[in-house]
Amino acid sequence: MALGEFELIRRFFTDQPVKHPSTMLGVGDDCALLHVDGSQALAITTDTMVEGIHFLPDVDPEALGHKVLAVNLSDLAAMGAEPRWVTLALTLPHCDTTWLQNFAKGFFALAKRYGVELIGGDTTRGPLTITVQALGLTPRNGALWRSGACPGDLIYLTGELGAAGLGLKIRQGRTAIEDRTAIAHLERPEPRVDVGMKLRGLASSCIDVSDGLAADLGHILEASGVGAALDWERLPLPNRVRRYARETGDWRMPLSAGDDYELCFTVPPANRDQLERSLATSGVALALIGRIEPHTGLRLFKDGQSIDLSQDGYQHFSRD
Amino acid sequence: MALGEFELIRRFFTDQPVKHPSTMLGVGDDCALLHVDGSQALAITTDTMVEGIHFLPDVDPEALGHKVLAVNLSDLAAMGAEPRWVTLALTLPHCDTTWLQNFAKGFFALAKRYGVELIGGDTTRGPLTITVQALGLTPRNGALWRSGACPGDLIYLTGELGAAGLGLKIRQGRTAIEDRTAIAHLERPEPRVDVGMKLRGLASSCIDVSDGLAADLGHILEASGVGAALDWERLPLPNRVRRYARETGDWRMPLSAGDDYELCFTVPPANRDQLERSLATSGVALALIGRIEPHTGLRLFKDGQSIDLSQDGYQHFSRD
Repeated sequence: MALGEFELIRRFFTDQPVKHPSTMLGVGDDCALLHVDGSQALAITTDTMVEGIHFLPDVDPEALGHKVLAVNLSDLAAMGAEPRWVTLALTLPHCDTTWLQNFAKGFFALAKRYGVELIGGDTTRGPLTITVQALGLTPRNGALWRSGACPGDLIYLTGELGAAGLGLKIRQGRTAIEDRTAIAHLERPEPRVDVGMKLRGLASSCIDVSDGLAADLGHILEASGVGAALDWERLPLPNRVRRYARETGDWRMPLSAGDDYELCFTVPPANRDQLERSLATSGVALALIGRIEPHTGLRLFKDGQSIDLSQDGYQHFSRD
Repeated sequence: MALGEFELIRRFFTDQPVKHPSTMLGVGDDCALLHVDGSQALAITTDTMVEGIHFLPDVDPEALGHKVLAVNLSDLAAMGAEPRWVTLALTLPHCDTTWLQNFAKGFFALAKRYGVELIGGDTTRGPLTITVQALGLTPRNGALWRSGACPGDLIYLTGELGAAGLGLKIRQGRTAIEDRTAIAHLERPEPRVDVGMKLRGLASSCIDVSDGLAADLGHILEASGVGAALDWERLPLPNRVRRYARETGDWRMPLSAGDDYELCFTVPPANRDQLERSLATSGVALALIGRIEPHTGLRLFKDGQSIDLSQDGYQHFSRD
């Protein structure tokens, strides 16, 4: 690799579309400097994606640039935070300018859409690994925690369930079903930022479904000290996911597959009407999938039976 | 790897020594939530370390835990920021509990010393890669930028130069010199946090020497639109580094080797007395090594000659 290519890489990330007045100093010094108003809370999240674990080696770099940012914005959405800043730590095996250009294109297209400014990062040589850290703002006491769900609260889910899981099975060649929408869900998830912000003051808890509905709703239940019952008939499963579940008998897939990046949240019955009105114009489908109960555990009602789902989920270190 | 080891890993990073009242929500939700006073600026930096690039595979995990945090605190120090929070993105090839325990020990020992609270992170499987993001606070207009150096300003350096570079040559078996202090400089650098905070209002610019003095001072010169002259005789070279330079003829090593993590800063002559008084009790050695000049470029005066150093430095992508 020739001298100066490190600088070339930096150049792909210099011309960025967003600049906030509250950014006192962006890329280019030892640190970035930000001004945060004392009436706000600063929300911070970080996610790493590794080649061979979170994406396949032949992934479209533009889609990858989109996804590494999207998964972090999804965490901000789950707090009800408005995205503001991001840092990017990029470990690359070599300097492939076409790849980098496309990666940056996907990254900045999404950043622009949500007003996210890149304020720093690090580029190093090594196995392809990408760590993004996203920062956003909420009113000081307006964030959505996992711990506020109460018995009787309604459980909602945005969008569809299991599409990304089906997309992964297709990419892995493990099903004959063809479905471009499912692949798009897997590779270009849409963070539910606008929905998250509208949930402030209405939802009692919220999480993004990155590790599967059963596992992620389980985190809400654990943090809130409650249980829940889900209704299979109400789950927003796309037709091809229903077909997959029927043909294979693997009905757990949409509940345990990760990567959907939808929001799962709970709402006190008194807020139901206001919530449904508020989200009616969001362009995002909304499904009422169950209810919070006082006794712990996660149950699914399916075909007249109650099935315990408490053990379902995803563990990064339990797959081999 | 057995089920639940992912949880085991998280456990090593749960019992942490520091908690700040301004942390509204720490590890365990979609995001951490922080409160930042509007009179302050929030400084953010991120650094990645990759096995085989930034450290050897047989590195002591306790030293590695120290170093990944130290290099980020060093960036905060270079802004004059007081360290406050940190996130840790850890990519691990497998779950080695002894290794993790020692890594966490080194990480938290340094975190405790500087009052740094771990507020989030991500643990994934993959080639050993560690990305740390550190956040600190300065008075709103009190941060040290790279861009403030003016002709006539004095150039200072903390500590010693070239010790870490010599330590690397020893670890690589490329010199017969033995020097435990040099290895300690390489593997357990001490971030100059207290010095950085004392430079507020006194220094006109500051940077930490992570990529070599020539390259890093070069960043100050570029950002400030000035040049500089250094005096070889004034460089704080430890005896064994002088001996190495004399025996090998490689006198550029201490100027181009990275990993020293000392602060290089510029001071207007009018602030000189106050600065030297202020740092006299810091326990950190201080060397006046040169002066900022109006014409661009970096020159070294050595043995009666003026040598152009403008091309020296370190590039992550230019080593093969």
